[in-house]
Amino acid sequence: MSQASGYEAWIISIGNELLIGKVTNTNLAWLGRKLTLLGYNVRRGLILSDDIEDIEWGFRTALGSNAKVIVSTGGLGPTFDDKTLEGVAAALDEKLVLNEKSLEEIRKKYERIGLSLNPARIKMARIPESGKPLYNPVGTAPGVYITKSDKHIFVLPGVPKEMKAIFETQVERILKEIGPKIFFIEKTFTSIGIPESELALFTNRLVREEPSVYIKSHPKCVESRGPIIEFHVTASSRNRREAEEKVERVVEKLMRYLIEKGAVIEE
Amino acid sequence: MSQASGYEAWIISIGNELLIGKVTNTNLAWLGRKLTLLGYNVRRGLILSDDIEDIEWGFRTALGSNAKVIVSTGGLGPTFDDKTLEGVAAALDEKLVLNEKSLEEIRKKYERIGLSLNPARIKMARIPESGKPLYNPVGTAPGVYITKSDKHIFVLPGVPKEMKAIFETQVERILKEIGPKIFFIEKTFTSIGIPESELALFTNRLVREEPSVYIKSHPKCVESRGPIIEFHVTASSRNRREAEEKVERVVEKLMRYLIEKGAVIEE
Repeated sequence: MSQASGYEAWIISIGNELLIGKVTNTNLAWLGRKLTLLGYNVRRGLILSDDIEDIEWGFRTALGSNAKVIVSTGGLGPTFDDKTLEGVAAALDEKLVLNEKSLEEIRKKYERIGLSLNPARIKMARIPESGKPLYNPVGTAPGVYITKSDKHIFVLPGVPKEMKAIFETQVERILKEIGPKIFFIEKTFTSIGIPESELALFTNRLVREEPSVYIKSHPKCVESRGPIIEFHVTASSRNRREAEEKVERVVEKLMRYLIEKGAVIEE
Repeated sequence: MSQASGYEAWIISIGNELLIGKVTNTNLAWLGRKLTLLGYNVRRGLILSDDIEDIEWGFRTALGSNAKVIVSTGGLGPTFDDKTLEGVAAALDEKLVLNEKSLEEIRKKYERIGLSLNPARIKMARIPESGKPLYNPVGTAPGVYITKSDKHIFVLPGVPKEMKAIFETQVERILKEIGPKIFFIEKTFTSIGIPESELALFTNRLVREEPSVYIKSHPKCVESRGPIIEFHVTASSRNRREAEEKVERVVEKLMRYLIEKGAVIEE
């Protein structure tokens, strides 16, 4: 069951290091949280290798979907295996062109540490024709912002510090402007003593009563006091008070049922 | 550039909690590492919502790919939003049928804690027609193993402890039997003092000289001693000694170049 919002977002993570398990994908979780809090319905994540054809496939698939927003991370650096912009250009049927503004910023950054431009550094300024550079306040590889028909594509670096800096200084503002102006409300609590399978019929009924509220139960370990379940109840609405009331109503019903069944609640 | 192996694997992670950033996807990294060490080329990851249509899309896409192995996690529990097996059955054009062996195991597990079967618990024993249950040694929801034409599909729970237990007791053995019998060799080291963009031309040449070795550079922070880069050099081969020699050769060339340029190496 997806959130109420009709504004879908996809996240694309690029890098072999994610697929071979060298690096855990914290960028996707961070972006998913940010997009959700901005009212977007994060619908899908794609983890792609550094292969151009795979990257092209990922962006073509996202461009053919209902996603209004596509955010990618990774593959923007100076080395031979940083191929994201080539893949994006192919998916958009565009060419890569040298962006003078980006090149000037890259040149200045290297100049400051006593280095001059070389082909690897110039490569980072070659972006798809319709792209606009996003300034990287903490690293060298710029991000890229592309609008294509009704879609907004943000291509960000994979280094978490750089990705977050570009997101917070530039992407977030754009997402607020084009976004659904929706409030995302959530409440988490823990129930001890009742197995998840004891609750399925009740939560099923509750979801039918409140279809716009999302109830997720995460079974944790079983300890001496019995099975532990973490509940996460969420709702989205253009009206903050309405979303808050929905979540409160569902949490109250859930807790009452759990306590009747003998559970202990921890908030 | 992908690994030498022709045995592709896809990983599918199911659960809204991953997309909204409530949970970081550690399962994908864990499975990616395991599959890589077993000689598979982990080619793609899909992160899907708990929606049946999204799950069906994910499995249809993977079934239509070159993947020999598909491993999924999540959505096998007793609650209304655990829909993975419905989505898998739809993608396979199969029905869900009650598996008597699974049902008996689930019944026994609940009996031990003084509970009887109910619709939510019986649901966990309904698996696609061609599926075989995988015993869950630490939880209640069984996994499912399906072979379809040349593909091997492993459907595992999302709770990391349960996923790992089923993988290590049953899946790993099957993957070894059907696998490429390939050795994956890796070496990691850190270079301090040289920016990544200084090395691109050299690593580019090195990769052309040794096309079956994969060199990945991960830029880390810049500290007073200069930019820090972590290198990860990997190779796969049916011959362990051959893969080791390749990695050693490339690491030696890389380190020699870095030291010439003035970098400090930390192993």
